[in-house]
Amino acid sequence: MNFPMLSQFNPETGEVEGTAPKIRFLDNLKGYFLDQAAYQKALQTGNPPVYSVTSVEPAQGDGQLHYGLGRLMPGKIGREYYFTAGHLHAFRPAAEFYIGLTGEGLMLLQHEITGETLVFPLRANLVVYVPGYTAHRTVNCGTTPLSYLGVYPAQAGHDYGMIAEKNFNKVVLEINGQPVVMDRQEALKLN
Amino acid sequence: MNFPMLSQFNPETGEVEGTAPKIRFLDNLKGYFLDQAAYQKALQTGNPPVYSVTSVEPAQGDGQLHYGLGRLMPGKIGREYYFTAGHLHAFRPAAEFYIGLTGEGLMLLQHEITGETLVFPLRANLVVYVPGYTAHRTVNCGTTPLSYLGVYPAQAGHDYGMIAEKNFNKVVLEINGQPVVMDRQEALKLN
Repeated sequence: MNFPMLSQFNPETGEVEGTAPKIRFLDNLKGYFLDQAAYQKALQTGNPPVYSVTSVEPAQGDGQLHYGLGRLMPGKIGREYYFTAGHLHAFRPAAEFYIGLTGEGLMLLQHEITGETLVFPLRANLVVYVPGYTAHRTVNCGTTPLSYLGVYPAQAGHDYGMIAEKNFNKVVLEINGQPVVMDRQEALKLN
Repeated sequence: MNFPMLSQFNPETGEVEGTAPKIRFLDNLKGYFLDQAAYQKALQTGNPPVYSVTSVEPAQGDGQLHYGLGRLMPGKIGREYYFTAGHLHAFRPAAEFYIGLTGEGLMLLQHEITGETLVFPLRANLVVYVPGYTAHRTVNCGTTPLSYLGVYPAQAGHDYGMIAEKNFNKVVLEINGQPVVMDRQEALKLN
């Protein structure tokens, strides 16, 4: 038992003591947002951090676990709320529990093969189960940072390729002040 | 994706919506406490619930995960703080993350083979990693319920046998108002 076994996280700042976060800025999300013109315009006024992920990986191997602390800022590009790029697990059967901590958001889940999409709320005291073979993205529909823990098998790994290429079938837009989940193709007609 | 994927828990009550908790009462902990006379005396005045565990098991199989919400009441038998029975995982390599939610406690970790023991604090914003092959017990050193989530591989299972037979090498006693971790054999001399 010679590896770090205790970690302390701060859901407000998104920091895990002694661990460097990976920060994703707006320009890291090129091609992901529905409204490309609004995206380009936003980048002209700055390149804010959109989200951070801090990973805690005590050990490797079968039966071991890792977790990440995610913190997604509030914001929109056009009508579309800020989101994380989203990913599949490299080890496809690997599931993940998302445990909401602060803020108000949604999770988009999309099965890799069938394309079936499910949407769940994410906030304090809610736990969302992401099964294997399922791409997942968090969306901040609130006005404060959305933070959460994600716990996953150590062998899960991350595969960003499919989403980077095809994106999610669904988008989450603010319409009349409320988050609305729409088919991407339908939403493109709004712009 | 045809199984329950969203769950809502209440860290104050220890309840997960729609899921029945397993409740362990004082008389379920026969033989576990250091001070057998104090234990018998306590049972004469009642048989209170000591802790509850509510398990959420969306799916089975390699790569899948389960979680439990634990809630351990404050209390003592003699000088010894209330604790959970403690267990190993039936699938020995399986790890577990404990995520503190409310209250103030400790976790006792004891390696199955070497007997090496580690003690970590457990409270809100702390995460304790329990590696494989490691018996683990939570101890409530506070005056309010200690609640936490435990996330583990679906195949982990529970094995209570070793601890039921041999108990942990260490105990946590209140001495001069403070929690003190002691060797069981040393602590027996105090009584």
